[in-house]
Amino acid sequence: MFRHQKELQFEVKVERPDPLFARQVQEVLGGQFGEMTVMMQYLFQGFNCRGDEKYKDMLMDIGTEEIGHVEMLCALISQLLDGAKPEDQEQAAKDPVTAAIMGGINPQHLLVSGLGGLPTSSTGVPWNGSYIVASGNLLADMRSNLHAESQGRLQVARLYHMTQDESVRATLRKMLARDRYHQYQWMAAIQELEEKNGVVVPASFPPEAEQESQPEAYEFWNLSEGEESSEGLWATGSAPDGTGNYVYISNPVAKGQIYSAKIPATELHHDLDHKTFDK
Amino acid sequence: MFRHQKELQFEVKVERPDPLFARQVQEVLGGQFGEMTVMMQYLFQGFNCRGDEKYKDMLMDIGTEEIGHVEMLCALISQLLDGAKPEDQEQAAKDPVTAAIMGGINPQHLLVSGLGGLPTSSTGVPWNGSYIVASGNLLADMRSNLHAESQGRLQVARLYHMTQDESVRATLRKMLARDRYHQYQWMAAIQELEEKNGVVVPASFPPEAEQESQPEAYEFWNLSEGEESSEGLWATGSAPDGTGNYVYISNPVAKGQIYSAKIPATELHHDLDHKTFDK
Amino acid sequence: MFRHQKELQFEVKVERPDPLFARQVQEVLGGQFGEMTVMMQYLFQGFNCRGDEKYKDMLMDIGTEEIGHVEMLCALISQLLDGAKPEDQEQAAKDPVTAAIMGGINPQHLLVSGLGGLPTSSTGVPWNGSYIVASGNLLADMRSNLHAESQGRLQVARLYHMTQDESVRATLRKMLARDRYHQYQWMAAIQELEEKNGVVVPASFPPEAEQESQPEAYEFWNLSEGEESSEGLWATGSAPDGTGNYVYISNPVAKGQIYSAKIPATELHHDLDHKTFDK
Amino acid sequence: MFRHQKELQFEVKVERPDPLFARQVQEVLGGQFGEMTVMMQYLFQGFNCRGDEKYKDMLMDIGTEEIGHVEMLCALISQLLDGAKPEDQEQAAKDPVTAAIMGGINPQHLLVSGLGGLPTSSTGVPWNGSYIVASGNLLADMRSNLHAESQGRLQVARLYHMTQDESVRATLRKMLARDRYHQYQWMAAIQELEEKNGVVVPASFPPEAEQESQPEAYEFWNLSEGEESSEGLWATGSAPDGTGNYVYISNPVAKGQIYSAKIPATELHHDLDHKTFDK
Amino acid sequence: MFRHQKELQFEVKVERPDPLFARQVQEVLGGQFGEMTVMMQYLFQGFNCRGDEKYKDMLMDIGTEEIGHVEMLCALISQLLDGAKPEDQEQAAKDPVTAAIMGGINPQHLLVSGLGGLPTSSTGVPWNGSYIVASGNLLADMRSNLHAESQGRLQVARLYHMTQDESVRATLRKMLARDRYHQYQWMAAIQELEEKNGVVVPASFPPEAEQESQPEAYEFWNLSEGEESSEGLWATGSAPDGTGNYVYISNPVAKGQIYSAKIPATELHHDLDHKTFDK
Amino acid sequence: MFRHQKELQFEVKVERPDPLFARQVQEVLGGQFGEMTVMMQYLFQGFNCRGDEKYKDMLMDIGTEEIGHVEMLCALISQLLDGAKPEDQEQAAKDPVTAAIMGGINPQHLLVSGLGGLPTSSTGVPWNGSYIVASGNLLADMRSNLHAESQGRLQVARLYHMTQDESVRATLRKMLARDRYHQYQWMAAIQELEEKNGVVVPASFPPEAEQESQPEAYEFWNLSEGEESSEGLWATGSAPDGTGNYVYISNPVAKGQIYSAKIPATELHHDLDHKTFDK
Repeated sequence: MFRHQKELQFEVKVERPDPLFARQVQEVLGGQFGEMTVMMQYLFQGFNCRGDEKYKDMLMDIGTEEIGHVEMLCALISQLLDGAKPEDQEQAAKDPVTAAIMGGINPQHLLVSGLGGLPTSSTGVPWNGSYIVASGNLLADMRSNLHAESQGRLQVARLYHMTQDESVRATLRKMLARDRYHQYQWMAAIQELEEKNGVVVPASFPPEAEQESQPEAYEFWNLSEGEESSEGLWATGSAPDGTGNYVYISNPVAKGQIYSAKIPATELHHDLDHKTFDK
Repeated sequence: MFRHQKELQFEVKVERPDPLFARQVQEVLGGQFGEMTVMMQYLFQGFNCRGDEKYKDMLMDIGTEEIGHVEMLCALISQLLDGAKPEDQEQAAKDPVTAAIMGGINPQHLLVSGLGGLPTSSTGVPWNGSYIVASGNLLADMRSNLHAESQGRLQVARLYHMTQDESVRATLRKMLARDRYHQYQWMAAIQELEEKNGVVVPASFPPEAEQESQPEAYEFWNLSEGEESSEGLWATGSAPDGTGNYVYISNPVAKGQIYSAKIPATELHHDLDHKTFDK
Repeated sequence: MFRHQKELQFEVKVERPDPLFARQVQEVLGGQFGEMTVMMQYLFQGFNCRGDEKYKDMLMDIGTEEIGHVEMLCALISQLLDGAKPEDQEQAAKDPVTAAIMGGINPQHLLVSGLGGLPTSSTGVPWNGSYIVASGNLLADMRSNLHAESQGRLQVARLYHMTQDESVRATLRKMLARDRYHQYQWMAAIQELEEKNGVVVPASFPPEAEQESQPEAYEFWNLSEGEESSEGLWATGSAPDGTGNYVYISNPVAKGQIYSAKIPATELHHDLDHKTFDK
Repeated sequence: MFRHQKELQFEVKVERPDPLFARQVQEVLGGQFGEMTVMMQYLFQGFNCRGDEKYKDMLMDIGTEEIGHVEMLCALISQLLDGAKPEDQEQAAKDPVTAAIMGGINPQHLLVSGLGGLPTSSTGVPWNGSYIVASGNLLADMRSNLHAESQGRLQVARLYHMTQDESVRATLRKMLARDRYHQYQWMAAIQELEEKNGVVVPASFPPEAEQESQPEAYEFWNLSEGEESSEGLWATGSAPDGTGNYVYISNPVAKGQIYSAKIPATELHHDLDHKTFDK
Repeated sequence: MFRHQKELQFEVKVERPDPLFARQVQEVLGGQFGEMTVMMQYLFQGFNCRGDEKYKDMLMDIGTEEIGHVEMLCALISQLLDGAKPEDQEQAAKDPVTAAIMGGINPQHLLVSGLGGLPTSSTGVPWNGSYIVASGNLLADMRSNLHAESQGRLQVARLYHMTQDESVRATLRKMLARDRYHQYQWMAAIQELEEKNGVVVPASFPPEAEQESQPEAYEFWNLSEGEESSEGLWATGSAPDGTGNYVYISNPVAKGQIYSAKIPATELHHDLDHKTFDK
Repeated sequence: MFRHQKELQFEVKVERPDPLFARQVQEVLGGQFGEMTVMMQYLFQGFNCRGDEKYKDMLMDIGTEEIGHVEMLCALISQLLDGAKPEDQEQAAKDPVTAAIMGGINPQHLLVSGLGGLPTSSTGVPWNGSYIVASGNLLADMRSNLHAESQGRLQVARLYHMTQDESVRATLRKMLARDRYHQYQWMAAIQELEEKNGVVVPASFPPEAEQESQPEAYEFWNLSEGEESSEGLWATGSAPDGTGNYVYISNPVAKGQIYSAKIPATELHHDLDHKTFDK
């Protein structure tokens, strides 16, 4: 069960409204890597956690914090939109700056939300549940979390340069700091899990090691012209499992058959030779 | 520019058709972490790559391989569906096993694709572009790739237990092996990039270190009851940047204000006090 | 079966084209609460109606009217776009107002529809079937209809302030009038149904009254700090069913257990302790 | 800012697992009217609230409660899936009941979530942000809330008949009770707001009453054959605004023009007469 | 403006309910090529038509007919679901056929629509506006219409084999007949337009013929191994424009450059060399 | 299996960056009829092809070419975005042209992709799998391909007028030429297939010719007022099957029944008469 307190986690102020910037902030609220994503991802991972209380508790801590980040971003967008109103297009047609604002603003901030944050990205696409994952495998999920915080912090950093409003920047700096810590945190969790189970997800497959001990588990297939890709750590040396060495295949040869599919039943109406229809 | 050769990368055969399993295989073809996702993600990252040819070439190698994995999964689904046809419901009503198959099959395998693979998940949701990311930041993107291969291999491993068809299992083992190698590969790339730029994404923010050197970059906020979360590596010790030590805050206090939003212009029709409307 | 006549339901004219406004009008055509929504919602409710001809006939009356509203909005957008053409960006770069128009216009009005209305919102998101509901319960559905007309009229009212084109405003006033009437209409239907079956949806659950006569049916849980919420009609007095009195719980206590999920089968590869895998 | 406590709001138990029912419960978790919808809708309305603290506080109370309902449903689905595992299809082919379960289960419960709740509907469609609304107009939004609770309780009531597991039913009864109270609550809020501002949304349009005092605000247009629709409260008597009487128009006549759109610029390539192209 | 009459266009009856078949019929109601698609596509094309009344009138005729087809399919699904109810899972567990039905039924037919047609496909994905197109170019759109009727009739034909209910089949035969006629109709319209403007869409580009008279307009690039593709009509002979002859390029050579993208501004945080950040 | 070579198929250059145009180019990359659509459509049709190697090989040739077109468009967008960076809004507020650019640019080109192409349309909607079809019926699919190339070339032609950058126009001309050839190609394939099997899809239904030889297969129903539609080729003469003559029905009469749906089981809670509930 959850409880809410009135104070925001961090102060959220603006020096002056900026409806164009409000549109862009939507990306880190309701976009692919916005706060709605990390909030829902950590909550679902926490709700679904099976068996290790330490991780479950940690996921619930962070998931609960992220609900408050959605709250903060709504407070930010709300202030950036303060005073905006449905403008007269005719007046805009005479004043280029007004015109630009009318052209660049998210129309749903006026028409749909009445100056509030929307559960959508900066282009107005609604947030959806396929942005998140809770797989039941902790290592897989912590890697998803690290990727989400990395993409999220990258976007906030880019956003930071789009404004010179020092109050807004102060809020963004708090978010950058939290995203930094959350990257540390998932890295620490990943380190723990990799030390316990090894680096491959899932660790528990295959039951018999030989099932998968095939050359393909160590080969780089050079399917794009040029061999610059041979210069990376992935191209030489031994794999973390200690049982294989990387092989760089400069000229890979396909190992499969040429596949020709069967003619289907006539009821599927492929019409390759419809004379034979005799149902 | 691309070219196609007729042989599949690996052999794809089935011992016998299994239309229910065909429905489940769709998850690793057109689901959130299916082969369409890694194919499109690596291709877009490669197409958009700015400045380091080694990584661009490597992304194009793997992206090109993944197109062939989509091809292989279509060949697999195609064979699992061989011989299926629009069944008579009346007959199904008498034969429970037929009924179960009719109930459990993906109806679009009959009605829409005529026994072919679909660009959809196991529940029939179309693949979409928000499954992928190509951010322009290599470390962020390699972490996304590692997460995608981890989730993807996990799903193939689960799928493996749903069939006892040894030919199908042989194909799945090849995919498990490639997913294993691809995890190694992204880990190696991540290691290279972290050694060069540090572990936080993005590395280049802030320009002046002090902008972000705040306590919030090292604090764990215990917002869910219970302190099991204090037992992880993230709760004590120093951060990888060497400039901060983790602090576990058992009883966090909100630092922000209580925010009250302003009354909007009357043209927005919030109707809080509509008497004042005087446009 | 349906028939079409050539006249629009109401006159639709513009004094002059305004492609930016055309983009915004899309919200009330193909957005969440646009005319496509009420059209499809009422038609599906009418098509699926089981058992009361009066309501079925009424739904078909209004649903049929709304098809004509979609037609009217296409005629409006079409005229707002008259004369627009793919502009020269270079010229726009010199003329700020042209630049603003090119920046603010919906690019699909030029590229995709060739100056016609689109089945999308003001941000270009395609209309979809999850905007509507036809549940088979008349009271639930009439409440959905009242909510849709309320949101819809609110958006048209906001849109009204975005233009000073008197011809456009005349059309919008007709739509406001119809949305006013339709609010009256659904309120009247709701009143009839509530008088017959009571105010709770569904009325027919539970069969035995005691199944649900629990304290939870009358309690307000104050889970957000502050007790301003105790001042509403919902906090004191008796419920409309006459069998319970509202209780405002200032300090609610959770009644459930602390839930710990079971460890899953090893075939799910949670990897909590993968040593035990023995399939 | 939010906090989480370990106890669930109400007890959530099952007598025995039931993976088919787990699939159906997804509807009230991540479907159009599931708990994710009311949670996000009330939170966004609360976050965006401008100006009346009583309503803001109330929205935050209920929104916070609903996060806990999402938690409860995940705990329910988790228990319904306990013990499930990727089944052998071959065995299923011999045992019709197993086959039916394998056919009827949501494959993503095994493949994607590893026996956890998903942010999707009963057919596997991801939850998305266009299920919710926070418009800034309190009366419009409270009507949306009443409709959501009505549809939601209807679905829970239908779900109740799909199981005879008494522990599951006990949980569902708690949810029915809360949905009952929440319907009362929104009705009470609507009553307050209607008494203050009148029944039409928005109340503040138009500024001058005459703008909209048109016959169209009181007319029923009988556009579907048959006059059964004349028997409702909406067809006779006076409107709640006291300024108009309902008129039932048996044979409505269109009032608009026959609209013919203009030929577009040749750069749009309508090709009606492409000879005239002379750019 | 539209009107509705009570009779269905054609008789719609069933001999007995069949809830599994109801799920499959959804494909031709709310799927990619269902009746909602042709209805909305023809209506939008008609609403947006600029300049040729014959085609506009024809589009409105067919679009209006298709609204009635949506109505018919709802009547069909409604009857196929007659008598269904939320089943007891426990009973299903004992009776395999009931279990199969419970597993194979669309759960939303019970939970969401209460035994009515849904605006979704056979896998439950909501219909959306990106299924349709109204481009303003008549030839392009008539080709879209021909493709939609071809895919649509194919699906109805496959559906036909899934039932032996003679009443259902009678209705499907009417739909097959109409889809046959509509294919003829769009072919006739295409023939008219091609005779007037030529076969390439758009006809009006380029203004000066030489702009595009390049070898690439007549070349087949053999980018997949094997030359079976050289045997078609597209590989030899002259193009319909009479100005070029097809060329089959067995070994195509890329004509473009090797593209290397520029290093972006540091504010984009690509981190390729973040030392240089100096904002 | 696929291979990649470094050269682009055609040269892709720009004279100067143009971030607004980059947004519009997205339509032909990731929109409904963009290159992602034809790429995925042809590949899936090729992968799923059953039985005629000539068509399979041809589909693989073109599908493989289209992957290279996606690559080219990413290279184009990349160059149009060169040098763009997160702008200072304050500065934009003073300079109208900058303001217009900031308003008109796709914010995700800065925030999400870091100056790269996105898998989305010009309005930012992610590409999705329901844009494509691979039905297993060659004639149906070739018609889909012809429609896709027609819509696609139309959009490129419109785009051409939005820029005067001669380098960009040179690239677009290559695409127009390929789209021209691909229209020829699908027309040639259609001609072959129609000559073999007749013009109706599917050809193989019904088994007995009389099943469908009904008047409805030749009738035009004039359901929209006015008889302009009687002037087309579809209104008179004989059908291509030689067995029927078109009939123009000026005043069509509905042939179906007035359908009244049955009252459902009480467990569905329609509440029409909830007193009878007695479970």
